[in-house]
Amino acid sequence: MSIPMIATSSYTATYIMHGHAQNNSIANMAAALHALRPSLLLLVSSSWLLCSLLLAPAAAAGRTSYIVHMDKSAMPTAHSDHHEWYSTVLSSVAAAADSTDGARGEQPRLVYTYDEALHGFAATLSAAELRALSRAPGFVSAYPDHHTHVRRHDTTHSTEFLGLSPLGGLLPAANFGEGVIIGMIDTGVWPESASFDDAGMDPVPSRWRGACVPGVEFPASLCNRKLIGARYFNKGIIAANPGVVLSMNSTRDEEGHGTHTSSTAGGSPVAGASFFGYGLGTARGVAPRAHLAMYKVIFGNFRYASDVLAGMDAAIADGVDVISISMGFDGVPLYEDPVAIAAFAAMERGIVVSASAGNEGPRPGRLHNGIPWLLTVAAGTVDRKMYSGTVSYGNATQGTQGSIAGVTTYPANAWVVDMPLVYDDAISACNLSSLANLTRSIVVCRDNGRVFGQVIAANEAGVAAAIFITDDDFGEGTTMPMPAIFISPEDAPALLSYINSTKIPTATMKFQQTILGTRPAPVVTPYSSRGPSPSYPGVLKPDILAPGDSILASWAPLSSQGLIGHTELGSDFLVASGTSMSCPHAAGVAALLRSVHTGWSPAMIKSAMMTTAITKDNTFRPITDAGSLYRGNGTITAASPLAMGSGHVSPNSAMDPGLVYDAGPNDFVALLCAANYTSAQIAAITRSSMAYNCSSIASNDVNYPSFVATFAPNATSGEMRFTRTVTSVTAGPSTYRASWVSPSNVVVAVTPPSMEFGGAGQKATFQVDIKLTAPNVGGEPVYGAVVWTDASGMYRVRTPYVVL
Amino acid sequence: MSIPMIATSSYTATYIMHGHAQNNSIANMAAALHALRPSLLLLVSSSWLLCSLLLAPAAAAGRTSYIVHMDKSAMPTAHSDHHEWYSTVLSSVAAAADSTDGARGEQPRLVYTYDEALHGFAATLSAAELRALSRAPGFVSAYPDHHTHVRRHDTTHSTEFLGLSPLGGLLPAANFGEGVIIGMIDTGVWPESASFDDAGMDPVPSRWRGACVPGVEFPASLCNRKLIGARYFNKGIIAANPGVVLSMNSTRDEEGHGTHTSSTAGGSPVAGASFFGYGLGTARGVAPRAHLAMYKVIFGNFRYASDVLAGMDAAIADGVDVISISMGFDGVPLYEDPVAIAAFAAMERGIVVSASAGNEGPRPGRLHNGIPWLLTVAAGTVDRKMYSGTVSYGNATQGTQGSIAGVTTYPANAWVVDMPLVYDDAISACNLSSLANLTRSIVVCRDNGRVFGQVIAANEAGVAAAIFITDDDFGEGTTMPMPAIFISPEDAPALLSYINSTKIPTATMKFQQTILGTRPAPVVTPYSSRGPSPSYPGVLKPDILAPGDSILASWAPLSSQGLIGHTELGSDFLVASGTSMSCPHAAGVAALLRSVHTGWSPAMIKSAMMTTAITKDNTFRPITDAGSLYRGNGTITAASPLAMGSGHVSPNSAMDPGLVYDAGPNDFVALLCAANYTSAQIAAITRSSMAYNCSSIASNDVNYPSFVATFAPNATSGEMRFTRTVTSVTAGPSTYRASWVSPSNVVVAVTPPSMEFGGAGQKATFQVDIKLTAPNVGGEPVYGAVVWTDASGMYRVRTPYVVL
Repeated sequence: MSIPMIATSSYTATYIMHGHAQNNSIANMAAALHALRPSLLLLVSSSWLLCSLLLAPAAAAGRTSYIVHMDKSAMPTAHSDHHEWYSTVLSSVAAAADSTDGARGEQPRLVYTYDEALHGFAATLSAAELRALSRAPGFVSAYPDHHTHVRRHDTTHSTEFLGLSPLGGLLPAANFGEGVIIGMIDTGVWPESASFDDAGMDPVPSRWRGACVPGVEFPASLCNRKLIGARYFNKGIIAANPGVVLSMNSTRDEEGHGTHTSSTAGGSPVAGASFFGYGLGTARGVAPRAHLAMYKVIFGNFRYASDVLAGMDAAIADGVDVISISMGFDGVPLYEDPVAIAAFAAMERGIVVSASAGNEGPRPGRLHNGIPWLLTVAAGTVDRKMYSGTVSYGNATQGTQGSIAGVTTYPANAWVVDMPLVYDDAISACNLSSLANLTRSIVVCRDNGRVFGQVIAANEAGVAAAIFITDDDFGEGTTMPMPAIFISPEDAPALLSYINSTKIPTATMKFQQTILGTRPAPVVTPYSSRGPSPSYPGVLKPDILAPGDSILASWAPLSSQGLIGHTELGSDFLVASGTSMSCPHAAGVAALLRSVHTGWSPAMIKSAMMTTAITKDNTFRPITDAGSLYRGNGTITAASPLAMGSGHVSPNSAMDPGLVYDAGPNDFVALLCAANYTSAQIAAITRSSMAYNCSSIASNDVNYPSFVATFAPNATSGEMRFTRTVTSVTAGPSTYRASWVSPSNVVVAVTPPSMEFGGAGQKATFQVDIKLTAPNVGGEPVYGAVVWTDASGMYRVRTPYVVL
Repeated sequence: MSIPMIATSSYTATYIMHGHAQNNSIANMAAALHALRPSLLLLVSSSWLLCSLLLAPAAAAGRTSYIVHMDKSAMPTAHSDHHEWYSTVLSSVAAAADSTDGARGEQPRLVYTYDEALHGFAATLSAAELRALSRAPGFVSAYPDHHTHVRRHDTTHSTEFLGLSPLGGLLPAANFGEGVIIGMIDTGVWPESASFDDAGMDPVPSRWRGACVPGVEFPASLCNRKLIGARYFNKGIIAANPGVVLSMNSTRDEEGHGTHTSSTAGGSPVAGASFFGYGLGTARGVAPRAHLAMYKVIFGNFRYASDVLAGMDAAIADGVDVISISMGFDGVPLYEDPVAIAAFAAMERGIVVSASAGNEGPRPGRLHNGIPWLLTVAAGTVDRKMYSGTVSYGNATQGTQGSIAGVTTYPANAWVVDMPLVYDDAISACNLSSLANLTRSIVVCRDNGRVFGQVIAANEAGVAAAIFITDDDFGEGTTMPMPAIFISPEDAPALLSYINSTKIPTATMKFQQTILGTRPAPVVTPYSSRGPSPSYPGVLKPDILAPGDSILASWAPLSSQGLIGHTELGSDFLVASGTSMSCPHAAGVAALLRSVHTGWSPAMIKSAMMTTAITKDNTFRPITDAGSLYRGNGTITAASPLAMGSGHVSPNSAMDPGLVYDAGPNDFVALLCAANYTSAQIAAITRSSMAYNCSSIASNDVNYPSFVATFAPNATSGEMRFTRTVTSVTAGPSTYRASWVSPSNVVVAVTPPSMEFGGAGQKATFQVDIKLTAPNVGGEPVYGAVVWTDASGMYRVRTPYVVL
């Protein structure tokens, strides 16, 4: 029995990250850094990037935390329950190992026992104990407790962008998510956020078996009809880091990330939400009347597989309908990936799991959570330019006037009206010495290469307002402590011409503008992780694109979020970007669909979302990939399914998809067999409950709503056949015809070319033959889609493929 | 035929106010003054107080604007309409006067003709022309065009405070005011304000005869289903001030006042409204689905009776259901008061008129709009402390901690968390020189008598935050450019003790807090004008109390409204106080009642509001009068009906009052007869349409829902009898019994002691005898009430009285 060890750059078995993100000096340093030089996009809190600290090896002398999978069917009948059995096993292991153990005198410690997500436990074990354990009856596998540092956790006009409306479609059909329970695996929750107000919520469903576990600064009374459950899991952290002091030993969010994701998935509507006036509107979850349960598994930079397993295990046992997990473990095989393991059990219980693809794009193949039995979510933009301002100069009687749209994050409604404009060689260098006595003027500054230093100089000098001519782009997390707008060099000549031709040139500046309806949208973000999935490249990942860029949602008020003059500002809402933000959008849609289609399997819900996904943006052209700018010839190109999966989720269409691809646990076991996993590796995922025979069922052609044709590198020819079975979910008879889109080096054949269904529940099977006729251009993946269209024209079931 | 001339301190016939409020230097001066030393309460825009300027006499050489009342029944049949007749009269008058006129060579000019509010016209006339006119057939009366300067125009938690709820009561019963039209006589409107968004509004009623008159920066396209009419009237201003240049010759609001009042009466809901974070919530009008029509009659500081008449004349002709007018003319008799004149015609058409009592309190007898046939509205507080902040110091582990509630208007969510506190003799003087290098500290300052100068010093010095120990009170319009909270000297010792006993004392400060549920509320504001009404002391005025203090509503974005650091800030909402704000609240309630009781006369609606008004505050004690602190022994006492009328309006109770007092035009003519007005004076009010004989009908005992017993000064005895008739407005039979409250020197008798009604529409008459047995204590008015209570206990019809 082997104990698999994994080593990748993002997985370190012996060193941990430490440091609490929210102390003031770090926050100040972050603010100063932002002002000096912002990142292109601040993916969630910058503190994640700043406060890593290497510590001494983690576990107790000679002992390491392991996750141990057991075959529960091997449990001796003498034991009343699994917990007792696992304790006994551990004791006997300790005794057996005693004579050989380098950690003599100490006992192995049981960290968790699991019974839903997996059968087994987590424990601190010495090498000898591990060896003894591997010989114990019922042992399946064991591997060290992984931890991961989420560099960026993978906010709310986005619900409108998704087409969700109280007036029709999925939202009212699903009663806004009433009665559905979404379990969030995250950093905890700030229960006082307005998003968790339970006004108008239904009572807690009687089937709920969860709890509001009290903890530090989190009495059980903080749960309500919206936030119905709160649990926290950090035994894995403590086991691996003995003596560690957790700053917040409770489900209270220590950062804001979990508050953001949970309010995005199912937050109550909060009118007048904004980030310092930007994005002003009603913040609401995708399923605004769904119940939420938080399973906190992330404590600062500590995040251990054993805790994630414990959180998901509890969520399954508590009876959630949907799990949303905006974190992932890089570089682990499926059978050691806590998300994969727990999601398999969740699937068996009919729970839809939505997981973030990660923020490692645009380089290909960096995706995490590329797990065939869950929904892997990529991040797209919405039709909103969050941080906008306007410079209006001149007036009609002067004969010269104009208006320039620019960028600003100034956090207030500055009153800069008909104020004199100043532009000259000396002043416009905009350093501190050039800017004296301009307290009633708008200074026009030229970017000297350090434009944020110039912003600070202008603020220090007390300049009333400034316009910066710059190519610099900036966005989330960039502080703008004085009334300033960045305009493009392309827009500058008209302004300068007005200034030069006018005796007393003046301008009016407007801040806190957010532009809606921007085009194109959606666009795949550069950072969204791309397929193929390292853990299972044979299934096309990611599955779907959802809003994840510049999302406004609730945040825990734990640190300042802005700067005005020299005063730091706080905000209960934050604009954040990442697949962490897209994942809870997809989870919210799944919750709405769960409410409408109570009898559907997770695979059917996932299929409905995928086959109806939109592949055109709001300019009616194919959705583009902003990541393509960083590759190839620097032009933006259409997004591949490896960037956006089947396309952008379309909730109202997903409600009524026509046909669905179903698949269940057995289908995925066949896939695991085809991957040549050992029975122990498969059992780690499936637990001991399933009987199967790999040799008879092995198949990598799982009934999935997409397919991947893989040929040898530079192959000039080849052929792959895919078999799929679709199920009608419409009441009456229907007839579908196939059509397809294929790249020039691929010939596609679909058999049969048409399918008839008598009514709901009827199934039909078809084959798709993918024939390669020439190598892919540049060796890059090519892609196409098979589309089944019904005779009424109402349904269009799209199944994308890639050819690797 | 006499031409009445009136002269009072607040009415000047020959000098006008001039100056446009919104230029920058004035705004800056205002901002600076606010920062240096705020007024106790800024009643609407400070610019009204600052920019008065005396100019030369107004009218063209030798000519003055007059309002002329005509007897339309005397119109020769040769004339096709009143306009032609008035023009002819004016020409003949000019010819007749020519030989004697000091204004020879110029023609009199017709400014307006009127046909609804009154019969007659406004014109510029020389003395000779006026004499000639007074001899013309059909002439009734003429008097100079009055103008007034509204020192303070007489905002939205207030709707909740009124008990208006979508879940039950008047608001849903009235369909939120659907189909009702409220006409606003005011400074115009800012149509782009979110309060005038017409999403969800019904179409414009087909009966509407109004128009959206285009003008400067106000195309007709700006009207919509919410703002259905816009007209502006300034011919009177121009006639009286030849050559005057009006800065905004359209219905566009030049100040914000009309935008505020109209959004208060009938504005659409605006989520997330606040004044720099204070009072955050949904701003909505009292009748949120009512239509609004704006009649702009105020242009800067110009406001002429002829224009007000023209505005109200148009509103009546257009078909409004309710008129709200938050301005009044001081010191004019009823027959020259444009509001009284037009409101009489409005009453005849079934239009309810709500008018502000004025802001001249607490001195008695300074009320305007004390007109018997309209609703005169006083201003009360609501249960909200708008500008609050909190200082929290210490922590639990230090063993010393506390929290102090203070006052602040800092316009942002400053992040002042666990910051060091500094208090020592030198620094706490808080002048510029003492405050160097405290950019990361909270300085505790002692008020040196010029606390706002200290605020400025601390801001200049770059102090991170400050706590001021001061008795100073401040509120609306006070700018607080740095994070600072004022705390009471009573709260200081605990804070200083903590500082002195702690090595590194720290505190956390929170801003933008608004406290709801404060007690007691309502309280009559000191500034709300008090009765008796100078223009008719025999009717108890004001009629009712409505929310008017610290009201948040839309404002025209025409000037900066705040200051942060050195940057001015704009706001689309403003917190304002005055009877200007209470009047549209009452108008909105009247609109809701009009929707429910379409057949009721204006007097019945008014009666329903008055007899059901609340006389207890939210501490269950009698409503108090903050103005009493400025009189007597400095203690706060219960509010007299001369301060609050019948009490605080209670919309849900007013919907179902049990009994109502009705009264129509004839009843009010009887009252005018009893006032010994001449027939011309009466006709100025009633126009020529009514036939009556004063000697047979004269009565000062009008059927009013309150009464005033007036005895000679220091009378030791006396008796007055009042006769009233009430009408049942409940479906079934009912029996009412009388009870009363009387002051110790008054004996009350009610005959009969009980009344029976068979059903709706049945009437009963009773007498109230007020017998004085001793002089009023201190010569001050005393008061009481007669209350009819039905046998079921459901109805309580309260009729207050005062004894002068």
